[in-house]
Amino acid sequence: MPIVTLTTDFGTRDGYVGAMKGVILTLAPGTTIVDIAHEIPRHDTQHAAFVLATSAWRFPAGTIHVCVVDPGVGGARAEVIVSARGHLFVGPDNGVFALVGAGCDGTWAITSPAFVAADPAPTFHGRDVFAPAAAALAGGLPPAAAGPATCLSLVARGRPIGSIVHVDGYGNLITDLAPGPTFVRAGGQRVAVRRTFLDVDQGQLVAYVGSAGTIELAVREGSAAAVLGLARGAPVEPA
Amino acid sequence: MPIVTLTTDFGTRDGYVGAMKGVILTLAPGTTIVDIAHEIPRHDTQHAAFVLATSAWRFPAGTIHVCVVDPGVGGARAEVIVSARGHLFVGPDNGVFALVGAGCDGTWAITSPAFVAADPAPTFHGRDVFAPAAAALAGGLPPAAAGPATCLSLVARGRPIGSIVHVDGYGNLITDLAPGPTFVRAGGQRVAVRRTFLDVDQGQLVAYVGSAGTIELAVREGSAAAVLGLARGAPVEPA
Amino acid sequence: MPIVTLTTDFGTRDGYVGAMKGVILTLAPGTTIVDIAHEIPRHDTQHAAFVLATSAWRFPAGTIHVCVVDPGVGGARAEVIVSARGHLFVGPDNGVFALVGAGCDGTWAITSPAFVAADPAPTFHGRDVFAPAAAALAGGLPPAAAGPATCLSLVARGRPIGSIVHVDGYGNLITDLAPGPTFVRAGGQRVAVRRTFLDVDQGQLVAYVGSAGTIELAVREGSAAAVLGLARGAPVEPA
Repeated sequence: MPIVTLTTDFGTRDGYVGAMKGVILTLAPGTTIVDIAHEIPRHDTQHAAFVLATSAWRFPAGTIHVCVVDPGVGGARAEVIVSARGHLFVGPDNGVFALVGAGCDGTWAITSPAFVAADPAPTFHGRDVFAPAAAALAGGLPPAAAGPATCLSLVARGRPIGSIVHVDGYGNLITDLAPGPTFVRAGGQRVAVRRTFLDVDQGQLVAYVGSAGTIELAVREGSAAAVLGLARGAPVEPA
Repeated sequence: MPIVTLTTDFGTRDGYVGAMKGVILTLAPGTTIVDIAHEIPRHDTQHAAFVLATSAWRFPAGTIHVCVVDPGVGGARAEVIVSARGHLFVGPDNGVFALVGAGCDGTWAITSPAFVAADPAPTFHGRDVFAPAAAALAGGLPPAAAGPATCLSLVARGRPIGSIVHVDGYGNLITDLAPGPTFVRAGGQRVAVRRTFLDVDQGQLVAYVGSAGTIELAVREGSAAAVLGLARGAPVEPA
Repeated sequence: MPIVTLTTDFGTRDGYVGAMKGVILTLAPGTTIVDIAHEIPRHDTQHAAFVLATSAWRFPAGTIHVCVVDPGVGGARAEVIVSARGHLFVGPDNGVFALVGAGCDGTWAITSPAFVAADPAPTFHGRDVFAPAAAALAGGLPPAAAGPATCLSLVARGRPIGSIVHVDGYGNLITDLAPGPTFVRAGGQRVAVRRTFLDVDQGQLVAYVGSAGTIELAVREGSAAAVLGLARGAPVEPA
């Protein structure tokens, strides 16, 4: 049976994640369900997009990735299945798949009754649309059976390069700058690009090529976000 | 092999959840363990009861649900197995199963040595009573082999209808009011019941029939709990 | 297939845990991955050591335990595989395995290309070293194939007995005092050792033999850490 991953902003204090898992295991018995992250900041689709982009590709081809960060649930945004580089992605078309869209070779709107629960709650498509759709795919239905081909809206694409794209739980600032510069400027400070944060003392600011492949700023055993007072979107430039 | 779900207030910074999983996988190899929620507010049995009631039934029949929110661990409350609607529930008889009790067709106190560890720690029945009991059930022992039939104490039942029964991680206020009213009154405000929170602007208060099937109050992309200053138990009435 | 457990300080808001799971499931399909804890306080290797020591042994023999709390990632500390009491442990040699080291019957440094990703990121050995190493072990490679035998550095061993070794999420204070004393002194207070916290009223301080087998202090339905103002390392002595 295939793998289904879950990425949500539901947290782990309510029954929402459990309900999704129950639906998937009922409709597609034997599926391997894997939690990627459930503490995505509430409603933060850009955060979710980065999390998916830095984890989904590590799974085997054929994996089905469900993402439910969906402040517009029940509204006009489409519910989609995206096929990209041998993986399938299921969720709202609100930008959560922006960073996988580059490799996209097909997008379908979910409309077929075989892919959704009867009478879905307008506020919980994770349980009533995305979990059933993932189960249908896990059970072997092709994505094209879900509904008409559509166009993935790559929300938040086209931004100029040179900014913070993600702040992780350590307070590290991940940028979209490709490796190359030997110094960067962020928050009014000029920072040398070293190999890793061990090249500075504890509490010192440093830049290096991070695990996402781009330039990242950190404070060793501290928070660069706090020290520099910067958040996602702040400019970072070669200097 | 059957599915065993886990719902606890242990959090995910200690070894308590891991110890339970290890015991289950040792005693019942091949069991599929599924995390429902581990960030139940500490000692909050009513919160746990709502989480179970809104997630457990989504799993396949035959699933074994372990719930360990147990401020009276080691005390007089019984340890029980509850059979309801084809599912089994394992945990303390302290109200965590109050909301599944309506469909209950049997309750047994756990006393058989085949269902508990030798010399259980009085402060960690999750590891030494409930995990072994779940493993015994997963291995095929019938619930009646656990001990004598008993009577599930439905703590917190019988409350008058018309209040908040759960506050979720978004700050949404879930009530026990059945669909029907077109306006409700909560926290001194009269709120129209709409289809979903998208029917109001961001930051606005709204009511709708939520995914639990009852009337729910929310602030779109905000927290109704914070805006109204209300918590579980506060009255909400048709208006 | 064997079981691989994960214990990290990565939290559940980023893609780090997901990336590790994807690597393991790609390199060792069918592996059962079990989350022990991902909210280890950032960089707190002693906390991780206690979590592992109180959960790992509950899993079946043959389980592979990956621990990534690694403030010195990419630096001089070795990456190791530890064999102890039929279990394998994979992670940095920085003290996270201090409490399993007593039962250790072999330690190997990870150097073989068969155990690591090509060109590992210096800041994310969880994904590029420890996950591939766990997958290699899960696939049947013997630990001795990972690299040369080495000596596990038991950081934080040798401490005098009589202190708090762990503060759990409830604020319980777990000590390294063996059962025996009938009173202990902590934070200037003399506390009777009872059977469990139910032997005192809500809000009262109590000591008992905890689930780790040593003396533990708690405030019933409260936090002993907050009430006594004590943290890990504070002295606790028979009195």
